[in-house]
Amino acid sequence: MPRSTVVRPEEIRRHNLSQVLHQIHVHGAMSRAELTASLGLNRSTIGDLVADLVRRGMVDEHVPAAGVDRAGGDKAGRPSHMVAPRRDGPYVLAVEVEVERMVSAAVGLGGRIHVRRETPLASPSSPSGALTQIARDARWLAARMPVDARLVGVGVSVPGTVRRTDGMVVHAPNLGWRNVPFGARLRRRLGDSVSVRIGNNANLGALAEHQRGAARQLRDVVYVTGGVGVGGGVIVDGAEVLGAGGYAGEIGHIMLDPNGPPCHCGSNGCVETSLGEHAMLRAAGHTGPPGSAAVAAVLASAAEGCEPAAAAVAAQGVVLARLLGILVNVFNPEAIIVGDTMEQILRIERTAVEAEIGRRSKAESRAALLLLTPGLGRDSALIGASELAFQHVVAGIATGD
Amino acid sequence: MPRSTVVRPEEIRRHNLSQVLHQIHVHGAMSRAELTASLGLNRSTIGDLVADLVRRGMVDEHVPAAGVDRAGGDKAGRPSHMVAPRRDGPYVLAVEVEVERMVSAAVGLGGRIHVRRETPLASPSSPSGALTQIARDARWLAARMPVDARLVGVGVSVPGTVRRTDGMVVHAPNLGWRNVPFGARLRRRLGDSVSVRIGNNANLGALAEHQRGAARQLRDVVYVTGGVGVGGGVIVDGAEVLGAGGYAGEIGHIMLDPNGPPCHCGSNGCVETSLGEHAMLRAAGHTGPPGSAAVAAVLASAAEGCEPAAAAVAAQGVVLARLLGILVNVFNPEAIIVGDTMEQILRIERTAVEAEIGRRSKAESRAALLLLTPGLGRDSALIGASELAFQHVVAGIATGD
Repeated sequence: MPRSTVVRPEEIRRHNLSQVLHQIHVHGAMSRAELTASLGLNRSTIGDLVADLVRRGMVDEHVPAAGVDRAGGDKAGRPSHMVAPRRDGPYVLAVEVEVERMVSAAVGLGGRIHVRRETPLASPSSPSGALTQIARDARWLAARMPVDARLVGVGVSVPGTVRRTDGMVVHAPNLGWRNVPFGARLRRRLGDSVSVRIGNNANLGALAEHQRGAARQLRDVVYVTGGVGVGGGVIVDGAEVLGAGGYAGEIGHIMLDPNGPPCHCGSNGCVETSLGEHAMLRAAGHTGPPGSAAVAAVLASAAEGCEPAAAAVAAQGVVLARLLGILVNVFNPEAIIVGDTMEQILRIERTAVEAEIGRRSKAESRAALLLLTPGLGRDSALIGASELAFQHVVAGIATGD
Repeated sequence: MPRSTVVRPEEIRRHNLSQVLHQIHVHGAMSRAELTASLGLNRSTIGDLVADLVRRGMVDEHVPAAGVDRAGGDKAGRPSHMVAPRRDGPYVLAVEVEVERMVSAAVGLGGRIHVRRETPLASPSSPSGALTQIARDARWLAARMPVDARLVGVGVSVPGTVRRTDGMVVHAPNLGWRNVPFGARLRRRLGDSVSVRIGNNANLGALAEHQRGAARQLRDVVYVTGGVGVGGGVIVDGAEVLGAGGYAGEIGHIMLDPNGPPCHCGSNGCVETSLGEHAMLRAAGHTGPPGSAAVAAVLASAAEGCEPAAAAVAAQGVVLARLLGILVNVFNPEAIIVGDTMEQILRIERTAVEAEIGRRSKAESRAALLLLTPGLGRDSALIGASELAFQHVVAGIATGD
């Protein structure tokens, strides 16, 4: 039998409570009047649900001073109560593991980053080293949060294939990790009382850009991130595309050229053999160690039209566009968001990229396409990790967990 | 503001009524006890909802003879009432427009084909010719249905890009149609009282195989159909992937080779330049007109190992596998279903296809992959067209339309 979607009356209150929390989390402070309008519930029900969230220490209510009422008051002209996430309310630990650095942050309801910390990582970094750093960051951040603030979840972004169900990092080639039970090990480090969830950086970037970045108003979005590796995250009709095991979006290993060079994955002509920092540095004649400084130098040089950097960046633009053309044909998205080093390629080569996408995709599939850069800058995956952790909190209220 | 998903009590009854109808439509005849178990509602609620559907002329109830009770009776051992779609209940007209033929059928609740008709089409067929044939088939089928049976919707499958919202056929290259307002014209032909919906053949094939074919128990499925053209339909987490305009799944124009031959779409090296009946016939040295007879001859010859047919089919297998490898990386599906002439290619070249998919996709993404042929044979798109029409009927009960 397929899953039933019948709703029983006793589930409605919890569902509505979770919806109110979801609204506050997505939009930040809202008036009761706005909540009433956006959820289609009556004022007394909203008042009751908000009071429940206040009791749970998640939100605060206050009456705004005259003249600052955002959305009208009641019939007597009294301003509507404002409902806002509490500063000393629940927060999550969000972590982004990258090739060269780790970023950790304490993120509150509403997606507000309270405190953040950035640490260089040895490259390649060991799973143990990353776990130790996360535990250290958790203490460091907690010490800077209000005494009453309670850690309710942990979300970690990893640049590799991750099994969502248990946080197994199956393969993170640019970290050199394979079959690392990162979720389980982090749970042991931090204590079993806190929920720990691990996700792929591109999937989490897509989640964050859809929730509170460049794709806030959109339903069908592809997020492409390319630095050392190339990854993709997809939102279809407002929901994440994860696939059977959680590995959807492995666009770095799409075969773009049957005569292309061998790839570390065992195939040849994969996207990653010609797209990404290593390919760009090679084409630009860079012979030293790779890294963000070398990449920045090539991009700066290309922006001024200097060869061979300009040709290397132009070549990246063509390959990027071919990949985007495939994604346009497959998903017919409203927007593609291009992040990390690929964002810089797009800025320099935008005209050529758009022309090549035009050549490589069906006219109707790209007719309404927006080609965007991330609204959250470099923090897409970090914010996505916090969203992953908060999903559990918001859903937990609905199910009573 | 995002769409609210708050549920108001007054919507629950309609929602549950729609769920009962959906269960009967998906599974066919069910006992009240099975409905109670699968929907998690109590017996009296189910009895009330079923009575409503009986009053609407959609289902019949009967008490099974002793010994044939499928799912237990009540505590006193009385057998549970069986609820079944009425034979003279509502039906839809499902139509599949193909390059060489048109199939029409009167399909009842439960997906049962009551009457069907197959007509050869002139190739290429004109939109007017197709519309005339559909109107003729509608009368022919109606004359063979019970007098009380009521036509409640029309669904049409077209091999091309279709705007779902209004049934505009944007481009059906193998029919030679471009910007044909097929939905609007069919609505005028059949009278405005009946709902008319048009869909892409691969999208509808995916829908049908997921609903009642090879992927019935699965949530993440890609359906690939390849005859003259190559198309794809995708189901993610149980729902259709349509994209912003309804054009998702245009996999025939994925660029597989930057040095490949020019494509009619303006690009070069697209999947369709090397995959499909025309490419296969060319490689097999066939010089006469294309068509199903010529294709059957090449496939029969290849199955016996005769050259150049065998090499032509082997080459098709390699290209098919490269396309499937991309889809595995992008979607990490539980299953890929391969239909039409590509199904025959897969049957002959299965070992080679699996090996090439293995080379072209990430190990974790294909670990649990099922490579299937359609459970509905050649009727996937036809049944999908009926599902499209029935979606409207089932959803209409929930919204009161």
